[in-house]
Amino acid sequence: MEENKITNIIKETPLLEWPQQAWTNLQLVRQNSPLIQCITNFVSMDFMANTLLSAGASPAMIHSIDEIPEFTPKTLGVCINAGTLTPDWLPAMMLAAQVANQFKKPWVLDPVAAGGSSFRLNACLDLLALRPSVVRGNGSEILALFKGSVDSNSKGVDSVHGSSDAVEAAKSLAQQLGSVVAVSGAVDFITDGDRVVCVHNGVPMLQKITASGCSVSALITAFVAVDPSHAVEATASALAIFGVASEIGMDMAKGPASLRTQLIDSLYGLDEATALGRVRISHF
Amino acid sequence: MEENKITNIIKETPLLEWPQQAWTNLQLVRQNSPLIQCITNFVSMDFMANTLLSAGASPAMIHSIDEIPEFTPKTLGVCINAGTLTPDWLPAMMLAAQVANQFKKPWVLDPVAAGGSSFRLNACLDLLALRPSVVRGNGSEILALFKGSVDSNSKGVDSVHGSSDAVEAAKSLAQQLGSVVAVSGAVDFITDGDRVVCVHNGVPMLQKITASGCSVSALITAFVAVDPSHAVEATASALAIFGVASEIGMDMAKGPASLRTQLIDSLYGLDEATALGRVRISHF
Amino acid sequence: MEENKITNIIKETPLLEWPQQAWTNLQLVRQNSPLIQCITNFVSMDFMANTLLSAGASPAMIHSIDEIPEFTPKTLGVCINAGTLTPDWLPAMMLAAQVANQFKKPWVLDPVAAGGSSFRLNACLDLLALRPSVVRGNGSEILALFKGSVDSNSKGVDSVHGSSDAVEAAKSLAQQLGSVVAVSGAVDFITDGDRVVCVHNGVPMLQKITASGCSVSALITAFVAVDPSHAVEATASALAIFGVASEIGMDMAKGPASLRTQLIDSLYGLDEATALGRVRISHF
Repeated sequence: MEENKITNIIKETPLLEWPQQAWTNLQLVRQNSPLIQCITNFVSMDFMANTLLSAGASPAMIHSIDEIPEFTPKTLGVCINAGTLTPDWLPAMMLAAQVANQFKKPWVLDPVAAGGSSFRLNACLDLLALRPSVVRGNGSEILALFKGSVDSNSKGVDSVHGSSDAVEAAKSLAQQLGSVVAVSGAVDFITDGDRVVCVHNGVPMLQKITASGCSVSALITAFVAVDPSHAVEATASALAIFGVASEIGMDMAKGPASLRTQLIDSLYGLDEATALGRVRISHF
Repeated sequence: MEENKITNIIKETPLLEWPQQAWTNLQLVRQNSPLIQCITNFVSMDFMANTLLSAGASPAMIHSIDEIPEFTPKTLGVCINAGTLTPDWLPAMMLAAQVANQFKKPWVLDPVAAGGSSFRLNACLDLLALRPSVVRGNGSEILALFKGSVDSNSKGVDSVHGSSDAVEAAKSLAQQLGSVVAVSGAVDFITDGDRVVCVHNGVPMLQKITASGCSVSALITAFVAVDPSHAVEATASALAIFGVASEIGMDMAKGPASLRTQLIDSLYGLDEATALGRVRISHF
Repeated sequence: MEENKITNIIKETPLLEWPQQAWTNLQLVRQNSPLIQCITNFVSMDFMANTLLSAGASPAMIHSIDEIPEFTPKTLGVCINAGTLTPDWLPAMMLAAQVANQFKKPWVLDPVAAGGSSFRLNACLDLLALRPSVVRGNGSEILALFKGSVDSNSKGVDSVHGSSDAVEAAKSLAQQLGSVVAVSGAVDFITDGDRVVCVHNGVPMLQKITASGCSVSALITAFVAVDPSHAVEATASALAIFGVASEIGMDMAKGPASLRTQLIDSLYGLDEATALGRVRISHF
């Protein structure tokens, strides 16, 4: 029913070139303004909501378990993020994932600092068992989920592993879950367990902006929401478009705070020629 | 007692022209730095507090039910916002509204996404029954409160109705409650059930900044706090001044994130000539 | 054990000149990227995390009591902030302070609006009894802690006292607790109960940016984390470096919002010559 709201939906992706694919996905978000529910951490709410708005989506930061049965079915996608997790938030996250599954809405899991503690790891594994459409984490987070063990060297939300260290773990996880798994880093890797796609966009200074990872997970949710049957393509497209926006922003930024401002402005104003000229996606 | 702290308070508004009225209200906020308590959603806290500070008010983002009986009487106004509502926050909101009423402090209700779910609608209706001094919402939110029903087309926090669609509902609500009701949109409408005042300031890109509505509700609280006996004038003035700040900001902005920065800077630096030249308020 | 992770740690500070001391402390943070846990208020999380990142530290905004026993020992310092306090957050704050003490990690208390209500005052006094390494507040907050009484003139988070009004209270508190106490304001005073050090950096417009005080408390935590045996020097250095970043930012800012952006960018890019030329610390 909700798919009727989506105009110009790509039912069967033609063999688009990657830059064209990424631009088409952004256009779909801008045209359809998908309603995206985020159950996320306190640090990221502002940046995530502004990322979704600047891309053309409609964010709803709603986490009350009382309204999930009624509200979640109206959305086109759900983003669940473990950032400032406490036990009282988990039931709402679990229920939102279940309702999303029931109504065939795509949902994305961002397992922030999954290896930071056993509480956090177990919460993320419980969510993972509900088979998210997409999981997006850094190298350390994906490795922690794959191994199912706490990382004694954890630096909290910051990765101590490169994204390439986690490609095999991502493939295995994707195969086990039937989910798309994305590992972000200097190069982003996106896999459905079979194919592996690499995104080469982005700038290192993104690591100096809190919640930039959370925000790209929200953008992935919006991109998958408007093209749910091609989650690999949508995920890679979102990572590339966010990366391109950061690259353009970097040309004008003087540090992490102005980069964040420029990134949002660039995502809002991104035009076709720039997107087509800058998106860099390849097969592994 | 607290009114003794207010110097230059307008007891009986002379028949000022609207631009002069709006400028006078801003001056009162800057001179008296009213302490404004906000019980609000997680997304908006930073932007709301910075909006209040840049206008000259003193924000206190305090929501513990344990300190409301002691703290709320020290404030000059309370802003209650339903954004990321959960059941455990409601008792503090209800109590703060009751204490504000008891101590004759103005309070403002921002019924974010009131039509999004029955939980949210009922919570907003319970708060509404406590008769806020001012209710500020978008067209969809005011219509949901007026009809007392969930909106099946709800897009969460984003309005699917124009502000003009909700003028009659706003008038009826205002008459029922004895409150001032403001509907914001391309044109803002402010009514006490009898008069309807229109504010023509603002820019469309405000809709691409999360919590811009929440922030203008906070500004309304500060403006009403320093002139509680003229809530229509104070509300219209706050909407116009915020709108003017966004217009000035828009001249320098390259997108939603730089607009937010420019808006706050412009609100902080707004001078008399600019305010008088730009404020556009009229009778309906 | 965790000290092994710190390279170039100053075991015994040589008698550095203050500007050299402040620069050295910033270099230590940049080189060691200390993991700093923050249990803080909702308003400040974004700004605090970005302050820590721009200084080179690694923030973890983690407040679940379930993971403190496992996670806090991995950190190099903890920042506890009473901003949007509710009773359900207090046990995690108390436990984090106790774990920090047990593992000899420095921790910093920011007693936001301590005099605003008896609930808030008692919570801050309970935390104070656990003997933080550093307490940082404005004049009104330090006086409220010293007197142990609610401030009837409280303006919430904003000080109604100058920092110099609270120097004697700060000295007494420091002697009682064995903590370093910092009073921030037009001049910042830092004392261990014996020495008093003054920091003359900073700009008045910082008071118009919400959570600027919270953010400097986070920076103090990072600076003390890399030089825990010289908490007076590290605290003064953090206040001076944050102040210098605000001064540089002020040269380019047009108001409070652009100042916040410029401050973070300046902190990220601060070079030795600028730091040495600008840091102004003296003995009282």
